[in-house]
This record gives sequence, C-alpha cells and structure tokens, in this order.
Amino acid sequence: MPELRKDPVIRRWVIIATERGARPSDFKSAPRVISRGFCPFCEGNEDKTPPEILAYRSSRGANESGWRVRVVPNKFPALAIEGGPDKRGEGMYDLMRGIGAHEVIIETPEHVTSLTDHSAEHIEEILWCYSERLNDLKNDKRFAYGLVFKNVGSVAGASLEHTHSQLIVTPVIPRTVNGEMAGCREFFQYHGRCLFCDMIVQETSSGSRVVVDSDRYLAFEPFASRFPFETWIVPKQHRSNFETTPREELGELARVLKEGLARLESALEYPAYNYIVHSAPFGQEDLDLYHWHIEIIPRLTKIAGFEWGTGFYINPVPPERAAEFLRNVEL
Amino acid sequence: MPELRKDPVIRRWVIIATERGARPSDFKSAPRVISRGFCPFCEGNEDKTPPEILAYRSSRGANESGWRVRVVPNKFPALAIEGGPDKRGEGMYDLMRGIGAHEVIIETPEHVTSLTDHSAEHIEEILWCYSERLNDLKNDKRFAYGLVFKNVGSVAGASLEHTHSQLIVTPVIPRTVNGEMAGCREFFQYHGRCLFCDMIVQETSSGSRVVVDSDRYLAFEPFASRFPFETWIVPKQHRSNFETTPREELGELARVLKEGLARLESALEYPAYNYIVHSAPFGQEDLDLYHWHIEIIPRLTKIAGFEWGTGFYINPVPPERAAEFLRNVEL
Repeated sequence: MPELRKDPVIRRWVIIATERGARPSDFKSAPRVISRGFCPFCEGNEDKTPPEILAYRSSRGANESGWRVRVVPNKFPALAIEGGPDKRGEGMYDLMRGIGAHEVIIETPEHVTSLTDHSAEHIEEILWCYSERLNDLKNDKRFAYGLVFKNVGSVAGASLEHTHSQLIVTPVIPRTVNGEMAGCREFFQYHGRCLFCDMIVQETSSGSRVVVDSDRYLAFEPFASRFPFETWIVPKQHRSNFETTPREELGELARVLKEGLARLESALEYPAYNYIVHSAPFGQEDLDLYHWHIEIIPRLTKIAGFEWGTGFYINPVPPERAAEFLRNVEL
Repeated sequence: MPELRKDPVIRRWVIIATERGARPSDFKSAPRVISRGFCPFCEGNEDKTPPEILAYRSSRGANESGWRVRVVPNKFPALAIEGGPDKRGEGMYDLMRGIGAHEVIIETPEHVTSLTDHSAEHIEEILWCYSERLNDLKNDKRFAYGLVFKNVGSVAGASLEHTHSQLIVTPVIPRTVNGEMAGCREFFQYHGRCLFCDMIVQETSSGSRVVVDSDRYLAFEPFASRFPFETWIVPKQHRSNFETTPREELGELARVLKEGLARLESALEYPAYNYIVHSAPFGQEDLDLYHWHIEIIPRLTKIAGFEWGTGFYINPVPPERAAEFLRNVEL
C-alpha cells in the first residue's frame, strides 16, 4: 500500500510508493568521466574567468596561480549586481529589474570532479568561503536572500565538471524559503519550539532514517523524502543562519558532508546531484523558529506532469530503506 | 538587464534572463523516433493492460478491439483505489494510506506518438473522456482532487511512446493547487474579480504574448513563464472546473490545443513536454475566484540547484519572443 507523508516544514505531501519496488541498484548511474578538454577553472587559466572577488591563496597576487579556493562572478550571471530594483507594474502584473549577485566558488585549482576528493580540511575552507561571501553580501541592503548551492553532473544542471559551487543573491525572498519559514513559524506558534530541533530529537531516537550521526551534526533521510536518497544535514544546536556558524564548527560539518556525499557516491555510483544550503533570509538573524540545513538531492528520477501540476512527489524508495542502504555501504 | 516577473496566480518570482540570449533554435530536440517494439496500448493487445474502465467503441465487447479511446487503471499505480485514508501521526509526523486513483487514457488504437496526429474531432473525444472520468471519480467522497496530465518523451517522464494521458486522483488537495487558489482568492477579495478573467482582458488587448486567439479560448505565453515556450490555454468565459465544460465547447478547445501543440512541435522539432489540466478541487464547483486552464511545459531546460532551493526559475527566453516565434512558425 502506498503511503502519503507530509513534510512538516513546507507542508508538502509526498507519495511513498513502496510497491513500485525500486531497489537502490535501479538507480545506478553511468560512471562519471573526466574530460580532458580545456577547463577555465583550472590553475593557470585565471584570465579565462572574470576577475576574482575572493581567493584563499598562499602566494602571489590576485588572479594568478597559487590559490586554494577562488570566487569569481558568474560569466553568464542570472542577475546583475548594479542598480536599484525599480519595482513597477505592467497592467495587472508586477516586475522589477533583475538585480542580485551570481558568483562561482571554484573549490580547487586541480581538475577534480567531486567534492569528496578533497580532504576534510579543504572542504572546511570551502564552507568558510561560503560563509565569508554571504556575510559580505548581506551588508548590501538591496538584497533579501543568499542561496549557496552546487550542481554536479549535467542532468543536475552543471555545465562544467571541475568541482565548484555557486551563490545567487536575490532582491526578494524566494517562494520556497517563504513556504519553509511559514511552516516553521506555525509550528513554533503552536509548540513554542523549533520544528527542526524536534525533528532532530525524533530522528536520533528512532535512528531508522539516520545516515551519519556526529556530535554536532545529523545527516538523515527526511520522513517525507521527495526523491530516492534525498539527504538532509542539520546542525544539532539551534541556529537559523548558516553564515553565523563559527569557524571551529565547520570542520565537523566538512567531515559529515564528505561522509554523506561519499556514501551517496558509493551507493549510487557517482550520481548527478544538487545540494542547497537553506538558511534564514538576510536581516533575519538569530530566529528561534527557523533552523538552517543542507538538502542533498540525487537526480535519479524524472519530474513528470503530475509533479509539475501538483507539487506532489512520487518517491519509489522509502527513506528508511535508503538510510539503511547508505549506512551499510562500503566506503 | 535581467527582469524579475511575478506570477500573479501562485505569486512566484521568475528571472527572465534576456541577456543569456537564447534563441528558439537553441532548444531544438532530437527528432522523435517511432519504435517498432511491442506496445501494450496498441489495438489487439487489450489483454496486456488491466481491464478497461471506460471505452468509446463502435463494436464488440469490453477489452476487445474496435475502440477509439480507452481508459484502463495504471498497471503500476502511484495510489491504490481501495480503503480509507487512515490518517495518523508518527511522533511529530503526519501520514495516511495512499488511496486514490491512477488511470491511463489510451488516446488511439494506432501506434501514433503525438496528439497532433489526431483529427480535432478525435481530440474532442479524448477531452470528453477526461471529463467523464473526472465526473465519475468526484462522486467518491474520499477524494479531494483530480489531475489530468500528459507526459510526452522520456525526459518528460513518459515510459511509453504510444500517445496517452493520465489521471491521478488524490485524497488531499495538492500544495500547488492550494497555492493557486490562495493567489486567486486574494486577488478576488481585493478586486472582486477573477484573476484569470483580468489576465485574458490584458493579454488579448496587448497581444504580445498571444499564440492562438479563438472565440472561446486563448492560448498564450504567461507573463512570468518559468520555462521557454511555456504555454497556457484558458477558456474566455469564466468557469472554475474543466469537467463542467459542456460537450459543445470541447470541439473548439480540441482545435486550439491541437494548433498550440502543433506550433510548439514545429518550432522546437517535437520537444518532450508535459501538459496539465488545472481545475478547482472536487466539491468546489462554480467558484467565482478560480478559473480552469491547461499549462503546457516543453521540457527544454534542466532544473538545477537554484530552482530546487528557491522555487525561482531562470527563463532565458522572454515570453513575448516565444509567442512571436510560435505565431510565425510554419504549420
């Protein structure tokens, strides 16, 4: 019998269609191939990207080699950094200028294709870089929200394979974020507690959906997973904004992120995936009701008409089965 | 300069990234190939599907040849038809049994792969079939919503190429529908008019986003199109539910749907696409505030981390340019 489960955060129903009987091996992807063509993100090609915004480097000057992590504007930005929003109507419709920021975090000078090829220490530096850029951009009062995300593999929307992340800053709070905040606010008003903090208590005590459980972080398959092997990482201590995490707590996050991704890569043979850092909006810090987290979405199934029409997802792999598989996979 | 546009219905912001400079020819798909393998939907193979629920036939008995349109239960249903919802909690989480209906409308006995290969008269019969099934299923008080949709091409989630549609009936109102209803309700409360009726006035008077304009129906590219060549078809006369459309108005809808799809197929060389009939929930008929419509989504771009994280879409083709292209395409 299929089951309908409700995501408590965004209040989205999901169909867990257990009887479709998918096994993890149904989703194995073609092995990722490293191409040998020209790559603008590799060390030595610094002049092939727009000038850098930030770099962690051991030597030399800006836009030269010798860096470890490097941030540049996206060469084809979705939003432009200059000017004001110029909000206006066009008959019944609302529009504004597309201002914001669109940056690329080049994670390494070498041409490697997976974040898990980095040491945990290097991943910590990448996470610190996310944090630095968000803390800089949130000072700009024109901007409402900053989203850090990662596309891996062409079906997940990546156009370059050299491992990188992106940051998009928008002048309005996105709809999904508003939806999450509304769900968390309602829970807080009713219970007087953070929804995610309750979720951490239930998940660690049940254990059936847990993938990695460390002192400070929990990686688990959410109860109403939309997708097979969807994985969330949450800090156990309440904090609404990713970018206010102190540096000394990012090392452990780096280790949990690396292990979570390595388990997915081993289970699914290097799937295409996205991860997305969900954090409270700019100017809304230290909220009791919201809790930052990372959502990792392996791109294994296709989104069809039903999902587009309803926002309902059909997931053929129960999260308990996915979690068990991920816990037992060889690393 | 990119533009941010707000969808007035679901209040979703979309980035119209004109400067990415995509042309319609950037999206041309590989021509659709008709496979010669075994097809369970072809005439003569009636015993390869579950027994039919409804068929329009000129002769013989149920589950034999001689039919024109045939409805069968999905062999791998996402939801099961028997039993009650059995709503319950699991700690902080909500769940229920996955009851509902999942049917397949086999549109024709011949192995054709596009709806546009049918005559308008035959498409009218398919639309009438949608209507009959919805009117039957809405009598079941366990069910809250019925969604008719179509997946064409494997990237749009189709697993069989023989042209067919699907119907999924759910025991809860889906999130996207609630979002649309909320947007329309707010507009109605403020203006005392239907949002879609206003949209029809603005679109027909501006004309820049119109694709097909007939007496009773308008096909146009929505102001805040999420995707290149996204196309909506709306009835000009206010009606909240698709399934209450009288038969004599479906012939013209069939002609507009056929022409709209034919223009997309000509412009984009038979793209994968979904269409979705958006209608008011079961038990909510003759609503002043909601207006049924069909959304056609060609599947040309990939959904990446930014879209998943925010519900924001980046569309590289302004709807005005898409509409002009579709109006001028050769049929």
